[in-house]
Amino acid sequence: MFRGILPKEYGFYDYFEKHAAMTILTCKELVKMASEGGNTTVASRTIKDYEHELDKITHQCVEALHKTFITPIERNDIHTLIKRMDDIVDSIDAAVLRMALYEITEVRSDVKDIAEVLLKAAIEIEKALKGLRNIKNSDYIKEKCIAIREFESEGDLIFRQALSNLFKETDAILVIKWKEIYERFEKAVDRCEDVANIIESIVITSS
Amino acid sequence: MFRGILPKEYGFYDYFEKHAAMTILTCKELVKMASEGGNTTVASRTIKDYEHELDKITHQCVEALHKTFITPIERNDIHTLIKRMDDIVDSIDAAVLRMALYEITEVRSDVKDIAEVLLKAAIEIEKALKGLRNIKNSDYIKEKCIAIREFESEGDLIFRQALSNLFKETDAILVIKWKEIYERFEKAVDRCEDVANIIESIVITSS
Amino acid sequence: MFRGILPKEYGFYDYFEKHAAMTILTCKELVKMASEGGNTTVASRTIKDYEHELDKITHQCVEALHKTFITPIERNDIHTLIKRMDDIVDSIDAAVLRMALYEITEVRSDVKDIAEVLLKAAIEIEKALKGLRNIKNSDYIKEKCIAIREFESEGDLIFRQALSNLFKETDAILVIKWKEIYERFEKAVDRCEDVANIIESIVITSS
Repeated sequence: MFRGILPKEYGFYDYFEKHAAMTILTCKELVKMASEGGNTTVASRTIKDYEHELDKITHQCVEALHKTFITPIERNDIHTLIKRMDDIVDSIDAAVLRMALYEITEVRSDVKDIAEVLLKAAIEIEKALKGLRNIKNSDYIKEKCIAIREFESEGDLIFRQALSNLFKETDAILVIKWKEIYERFEKAVDRCEDVANIIESIVITSS
Repeated sequence: MFRGILPKEYGFYDYFEKHAAMTILTCKELVKMASEGGNTTVASRTIKDYEHELDKITHQCVEALHKTFITPIERNDIHTLIKRMDDIVDSIDAAVLRMALYEITEVRSDVKDIAEVLLKAAIEIEKALKGLRNIKNSDYIKEKCIAIREFESEGDLIFRQALSNLFKETDAILVIKWKEIYERFEKAVDRCEDVANIIESIVITSS
Repeated sequence: MFRGILPKEYGFYDYFEKHAAMTILTCKELVKMASEGGNTTVASRTIKDYEHELDKITHQCVEALHKTFITPIERNDIHTLIKRMDDIVDSIDAAVLRMALYEITEVRSDVKDIAEVLLKAAIEIEKALKGLRNIKNSDYIKEKCIAIREFESEGDLIFRQALSNLFKETDAILVIKWKEIYERFEKAVDRCEDVANIIESIVITSS
């Protein structure tokens, strides 16, 4: 799986960027599913495929870490960063899987807003990660991290509204199902913020 | 935000103590709200303000950590300690926010017991943290940590009783709402125990 | 509690193996309870006793860690490993406690499948840990870690089926109770996978 010695400076950045690009694809698929509102089967399969690919990238990155003596970023930061990035799509996948498991036939309208916030955050994450290649440009990276946190705050408001709407329903079983689905999406948004915090702390300790 | 070089010995202790003092204030506000039993709006705003202030203290402490070469306690312990301390009021705030979001008009009577346990634990945390300035007096600090863990156990019994009472209700939506609120309070109590464990481990490794 | 200097090479392995053996006993008790299907009182007391004993072993292991200068495995790995191992029975205990708290009189049939998967994973964990004494035999240890992860995947399918069955019920309060119980069992299975990952990473970094 891992061949030869990584070019010290770029190997890990490549993993980060491949990971970020596929996270964006996943969020786009989610936006599409939520916009169409009905059948979740196709989207849930595509998202599961992405999730597997992302697992592989994460695994390759961690393996590379074990075999590299000198890393461009602190060893532990690389590990935490790729793991937290991986948690984003893991949570999205878990949310979509629950929809299938709970035989949800109608996607609630708030899911579209959530999907769009996730996509916007994922796009900023990609920019911030690309910025890491030129860590001296710390203002650019910090700006992207602030944007991610702002999307997380926007996400918070969407979740609060979604829950407020949900608890107006009288079908308790429906409330149980959707409360869990929303919580898993919320975790995905929270993980975007974690990623921003890790990137920012890398920038601070490197400057 | 952070100016000059921290006096090595005391800077971090100041952050811990400011944080602990404001955590106590938050718990007192919660006790007051629970005792009055009705309107949660005022208390929830005050608690949110405290939560913001505590975030700032935490942020300043972490920034200071990045800029300090020699720390009186192991770097990683300072980071974990202030983060766990911060989680206490974050969880209290989340619980109170849910009360507002779920349009709770009557605070269940168990909340008063929970609030009192949280206040008692927060007072012991402040004492344990003040003890850290004189780490040789490890028996005193350990004693406080044991007291915190005892309050956590007391909290456990209160939560079990609260849940047992709750599941006697027949309104499933009400059960869903309060189960979550209790779980968030429980997390706050658990974080007090985490703080005790971190303090104790600092004392053990320093002696 | 901790007397003298640990024989460098074996002390920690002894703690791991004592812990693993008692985890197996706990899982056996759970299988027995689930097979009998009715009264949970006796099993829940026995499991609580095991949980206390396991806490003691964990505590002794962490204390030993603080007092040992040279460890056969990286200090942090020992700490994380024993903690994650401890989480397995903590979660089982929490699940069983909820059964008692929620006055469950009939154990759902899926619990037997879950208990058996947990037992199988615990047996592989014991083998993998015994393998650590001879870390050069990394293929043997990795094989056991793969087996644990396969049991985790098997567990996933069981939980999905269990939830699918549960949501066919119309009693929302029953759904709330069992959803939580299943989630706590699921956490126990997840922790087995965490243990496998930690063991594997110890093997990789040591080779």
